[in-house]
Amino acid sequence: MKTRRADRLVDMTDYLLNRPRKLVSLTHFAERYDSAKSSISEDLAILKRAFHERGIGLLETLPGAAGGARFVPYMLQGEADEFINELVTEVSDETRVLPGGYVFLSDLLGRPDILRRVGRLIATQYINTEIDAVMTAATKGVPMAQAVATELNVPFVIVRNDSKITEGPTMSVNYLTGSSKRVEKMELSRRSLPTGSRVLVVDDFMKAGGTIKGMMSLVGEFEGTVVGAAVFAEGRVSERVVTKYTSLIHVDTLTSDGAGITVAPGNYQSEIYTTEL
Amino acid sequence: MKTRRADRLVDMTDYLLNRPRKLVSLTHFAERYDSAKSSISEDLAILKRAFHERGIGLLETLPGAAGGARFVPYMLQGEADEFINELVTEVSDETRVLPGGYVFLSDLLGRPDILRRVGRLIATQYINTEIDAVMTAATKGVPMAQAVATELNVPFVIVRNDSKITEGPTMSVNYLTGSSKRVEKMELSRRSLPTGSRVLVVDDFMKAGGTIKGMMSLVGEFEGTVVGAAVFAEGRVSERVVTKYTSLIHVDTLTSDGAGITVAPGNYQSEIYTTEL
Repeated sequence: MKTRRADRLVDMTDYLLNRPRKLVSLTHFAERYDSAKSSISEDLAILKRAFHERGIGLLETLPGAAGGARFVPYMLQGEADEFINELVTEVSDETRVLPGGYVFLSDLLGRPDILRRVGRLIATQYINTEIDAVMTAATKGVPMAQAVATELNVPFVIVRNDSKITEGPTMSVNYLTGSSKRVEKMELSRRSLPTGSRVLVVDDFMKAGGTIKGMMSLVGEFEGTVVGAAVFAEGRVSERVVTKYTSLIHVDTLTSDGAGITVAPGNYQSEIYTTEL
Repeated sequence: MKTRRADRLVDMTDYLLNRPRKLVSLTHFAERYDSAKSSISEDLAILKRAFHERGIGLLETLPGAAGGARFVPYMLQGEADEFINELVTEVSDETRVLPGGYVFLSDLLGRPDILRRVGRLIATQYINTEIDAVMTAATKGVPMAQAVATELNVPFVIVRNDSKITEGPTMSVNYLTGSSKRVEKMELSRRSLPTGSRVLVVDDFMKAGGTIKGMMSLVGEFEGTVVGAAVFAEGRVSERVVTKYTSLIHVDTLTSDGAGITVAPGNYQSEIYTTEL
């Protein structure tokens, strides 16, 4: 039975939102709704307009009988600025400061409403970039990696400091922790990442950047290419071992006894919103 | 400017899908689209029908001027069976068996398309249950916890075996690992979970269930209530310390030298699909 246009619009929206960056053919939709391809094309034009007007994302449409549509999620700068201001306010809370100048952020990185927007915002930077996988470090980078990978619709892989017997053969590298200059080891299951992958490296927090740099060298061991690096928060540090990265917020704990915290937007504006969407 | 119905349908679908289980008022939509509440009510009736017919989920609508709509995602049994069969096929691969009878599953738990369906399926069991938080154990339970928490639209918290200095004050419990009967310790940041929360416990893999049982006692220390327990895969074991749980697949490695693997659907059918949706 033919599906009505109103019902098609609702289901196509759901279908495309759940499959970011994948081309869905006109034929597929025509069969799904028992409708003519010309009707589906008109539907897609409506979706494209609504996605654009509401800042949901780009709907790329390929014309012709062999054509289809591909949904590429993005976040407009206005929404991004509002989101980052919300984060800055949430993190600007002295009770988050822990002894040693560390900052408690785990609650924020456990909230789906925040993670969804983190993923959407980081994915915006790579709207025209081919990415095969997202890489992060256990444990606290995982939520952000999953959020970004969901919007890019690619797998994510988890690098660990401790070897687990349930991971099988691993590839490892040694790296210098940026701040304390200790040598540590990180490893990734050999099976997790195909050789030659294009990888986006993400983490929850970056000080000097030792962990990020370690992951980058691990990508090299897998003969892959580092497409970029992104962190939820960057701390204040005198010297960084990673020069090119995107951060959402900048956190500075002023004193070592945990008495103060200064939070500001990270460098996302200049890294992500360089060209008009 | 008034928004056209077609555009409203697309945007309302996006808006509701991104806010599962939250009531959105008619007033909010009426202002968002500069449209009459009566038109919004008609739109919601279309969404409700399409969501139902396509197995996207339930759209609960509250009538009247003070009313609104709440989207509750679920997965129909037909889709669930198809999904689980796909998983069984993917896991039935002798190269996944590692020395000691462990099974490599990390690749599957790093794929957004799989995680989305895992979350949707587990959330289906709790369609009428109030849940405040999802709890899991680091590191490999995290992706599943995030997937389930996303569909329930509640925070998730991560229990760890090792204390991290960036977590602040923690609450800890000792627990018996089910298979080896060693005593271990697990802890959760005090700040992560409000006292008295209703908690769903999830993990990637369960053998005897020691970790799950440990998490349950940790929920007790936070004066909370365990709403249920769910695992991606359960292994074969002679005795379990957890009796009530939901599993998606059942994995049995036949020999200790890694020569065979038998995979079957878990108990999800009898746990989740007991009443008609």
